[in-house]
Amino acid sequence: MPVPETTTMPETTMTPEKTAMPEPTTTPEKKADAISAAIAELQVLLGGRLSTSAAVREQHGKDESWFPGHDPDAVAFPNSTEDVAAIVRICAKFGAPIIPFGEGTSLEGHVAALEGGICISLANMKKIVAVNAADMDVTVQAGVTRKQLNEHLRDTGLFFPIDPGADASLGGMTATRASGTNAVRYGTMRENVLSLTVVMADGQIIRTARRARKSSAGYDLTRLIVGSEGTLGVITEVTVRLYGIPAAILAGVLAFDSLEGAVESVILTIQSGIPVARIELVDEESIKAINDYSKLDLPVSPTLFLEFHGTEASVAEQAELFREIADDHGGGEFQSATRTEDRNKLWQARHDSAYAAMTIRPGCKVFASDVCVPISRLAECIHETKKDLDEIAMPTPILGHVGDGNFHVVFVVDPDSEQDMADAKRINRRLITRALAMDGTCTGEHGIGHGKMDYLIAEHGAGVAYMRLLKTAFDPQNIMNPGKILRI
Amino acid sequence: MPVPETTTMPETTMTPEKTAMPEPTTTPEKKADAISAAIAELQVLLGGRLSTSAAVREQHGKDESWFPGHDPDAVAFPNSTEDVAAIVRICAKFGAPIIPFGEGTSLEGHVAALEGGICISLANMKKIVAVNAADMDVTVQAGVTRKQLNEHLRDTGLFFPIDPGADASLGGMTATRASGTNAVRYGTMRENVLSLTVVMADGQIIRTARRARKSSAGYDLTRLIVGSEGTLGVITEVTVRLYGIPAAILAGVLAFDSLEGAVESVILTIQSGIPVARIELVDEESIKAINDYSKLDLPVSPTLFLEFHGTEASVAEQAELFREIADDHGGGEFQSATRTEDRNKLWQARHDSAYAAMTIRPGCKVFASDVCVPISRLAECIHETKKDLDEIAMPTPILGHVGDGNFHVVFVVDPDSEQDMADAKRINRRLITRALAMDGTCTGEHGIGHGKMDYLIAEHGAGVAYMRLLKTAFDPQNIMNPGKILRI
Repeated sequence: MPVPETTTMPETTMTPEKTAMPEPTTTPEKKADAISAAIAELQVLLGGRLSTSAAVREQHGKDESWFPGHDPDAVAFPNSTEDVAAIVRICAKFGAPIIPFGEGTSLEGHVAALEGGICISLANMKKIVAVNAADMDVTVQAGVTRKQLNEHLRDTGLFFPIDPGADASLGGMTATRASGTNAVRYGTMRENVLSLTVVMADGQIIRTARRARKSSAGYDLTRLIVGSEGTLGVITEVTVRLYGIPAAILAGVLAFDSLEGAVESVILTIQSGIPVARIELVDEESIKAINDYSKLDLPVSPTLFLEFHGTEASVAEQAELFREIADDHGGGEFQSATRTEDRNKLWQARHDSAYAAMTIRPGCKVFASDVCVPISRLAECIHETKKDLDEIAMPTPILGHVGDGNFHVVFVVDPDSEQDMADAKRINRRLITRALAMDGTCTGEHGIGHGKMDYLIAEHGAGVAYMRLLKTAFDPQNIMNPGKILRI
Repeated sequence: MPVPETTTMPETTMTPEKTAMPEPTTTPEKKADAISAAIAELQVLLGGRLSTSAAVREQHGKDESWFPGHDPDAVAFPNSTEDVAAIVRICAKFGAPIIPFGEGTSLEGHVAALEGGICISLANMKKIVAVNAADMDVTVQAGVTRKQLNEHLRDTGLFFPIDPGADASLGGMTATRASGTNAVRYGTMRENVLSLTVVMADGQIIRTARRARKSSAGYDLTRLIVGSEGTLGVITEVTVRLYGIPAAILAGVLAFDSLEGAVESVILTIQSGIPVARIELVDEESIKAINDYSKLDLPVSPTLFLEFHGTEASVAEQAELFREIADDHGGGEFQSATRTEDRNKLWQARHDSAYAAMTIRPGCKVFASDVCVPISRLAECIHETKKDLDEIAMPTPILGHVGDGNFHVVFVVDPDSEQDMADAKRINRRLITRALAMDGTCTGEHGIGHGKMDYLIAEHGAGVAYMRLLKTAFDPQNIMNPGKILRI
């Protein structure tokens, strides 16, 4: 086995790759001309469904992170896959950049129009195409959000589990290989997307797979598009697996007298094979913010938010097994929430924790780290990171989908403060170096965007060359979300 | 959503694609010279670990299917990833074809050296590299077989569930995206491979991912190699997920008075969310063969083989829920096997059913169909197929991983009989046409090999062009298992 590429990560690996960068084949002027020409044709195609207003452009050039916005030159609002294909064909003809946009909830600058170009908003594509209840799957247009989908499914007895917190679109969740609180039990978008309809960079429409639960028919185009962040094509329809709503759901919170105790309890819960549906770590600092923001009065202590799914008997059994573990690690009383409204309030509070964190320092933004490590290294990784955080002044609540080994330090930064930004970047780099040395990843669920391109190289080493071959083969003009994932 | 490419499949789609085929750039003579030159260098590199003996070559040119063998010109036996890289670099230098070989248990002619060249056998690469019990994963060299792995894990309380029947190598299982009896509960190789070490066509070694349970770091190179059938690179190491051996395992068989009743029971079991670990259909004809071959006396009737995993309480609950469904659909008594040896005997018999089928007609071979359809269409698909089978004389037992919608008609053919081969091919084509019209796939788990390349086109339509781009980008000389999956 080749040694992991990076166990320590010197400063130099954080600079762009040291391959000779080819001269750009187009000058900025030529690019601007190409974009103008594309806009002129798009106006004929779309009429009022193309906007060049400053407000609309600004709104579509930034996500929920601290990254500065980069406005696209125009925003297109297609209604159908065929509309998207027509838009892409026009952009391809002129070589104009294309940036797909779902709900704008990403966290690594994914939607920034770094080279200008046309934003394709999926806001008009919110149709539920087909609920196949008997097969437990559903096909939706890519603009459908997870909450909209679950609302639609309410009377079917089925639900879509993947839940990244934000009410993201299914297309966006696919593009970033999203996961979130339920992934420990139900998997991520990687495991739950059955098939995609995608408009490729040349305007061709492909469907990546059939609805069969499994297939050995050729290269896995579905998984190739999942996580490709709009750099290989525009996702227009998504078919995902659904699950029966469990007969019994038991949620609750449990405070610990130490962070270590909480993390150790998670590790043992996973290693014991308790099929927990959610097991989320929320540190003391987050609890304070959540209590203020969501009007709760949780004990201010490192806490696990949990949920068990199954039959009445099985959730009781799971909770009991978990309580035994927690008792041995300084856990307090398990405060259960069985009523739907209490459960929803609890999870809404957990999901709002990033927003809650921002209220700690009004006017500030979120800079979220996102490492994921093998669970045997989780306690050590968090422990070492806490020591780093003692060095700096800004609020840094920790939250995590710890059942998967994934956690976030939420640096609450003032993006105009050089000190803040330098501190956050330095400690994030140390965290990623640590995670890679533990055979972990620089991003569990947020993606690369343009914020982590150097870390991708540190993580994948020789593999990056093949990602580059792939990108160049599928998008030879580099018009699909250029400047994300890879430098071309 | 684009309509599925093919709802009826005319004869003409079964001929090679109608794009102009480029002239071959090498003549057969040049290719033979290239292979000879590669062999000369490989002999220096490997000495006795390169064989050109007729017996060894013949043994490595065929799999377990009816497909005629095509012998490679030499068989190399590397000990390590670095050995494989050195072999690939030599082959790449001369443009000699490379065919990776695990245990030779594939079913679509995957290992046939259609253009001659060098077979790379993984027979010497059977090391268990690292058991990470705390993370529930293991890294093995690609030649390790699933039984060898589970034997090694015996004292850890962990097991590797994927079980395609044959004692295949982990590398081969990865290459064909294998699944089998446990996939309904634990997923396929697609869901269970965490990371791969791969020697690419240019001799570069890459590791496709870290051991983190999830990652959003760039294109999913792991899933790109899973199912690539040796056409993109040689898999040398595999890291897979492991699972805790369940506290309780309850297996058993249940005979039905009709095939329809058995299939309907499966569909309802899945739709009810009973987390069955195995649910296998074995038809009357298969039961007869199994009874003879494995010395059992199962009632000769359509039968389900089942297994439930969980705690004592939960397996009892699952079995009870299943029995209620079976009772409504003409199911008989549930004959349970709780002792390990009884359970093993049962599953060995199920796994040996293909070998059992061959004994029905001594000297004959297996021609296995492999469609997988959305479960709501499974009963209809099997019913229509049974009607087709009434037309022909040869034995055609039906077996299936029906919880996934996957089943096999096992045509027991005399490969020398034109009538047999024409019958099997005609009915298999009708079956695949039917499955595709139901939004299913032409292969649930066996792969494309060189037997299903036209069906891949029928299934993927426009998507095939992107598979071709990918293959050409990664393997511009087309030396990696040429003639499989795609015609280049």
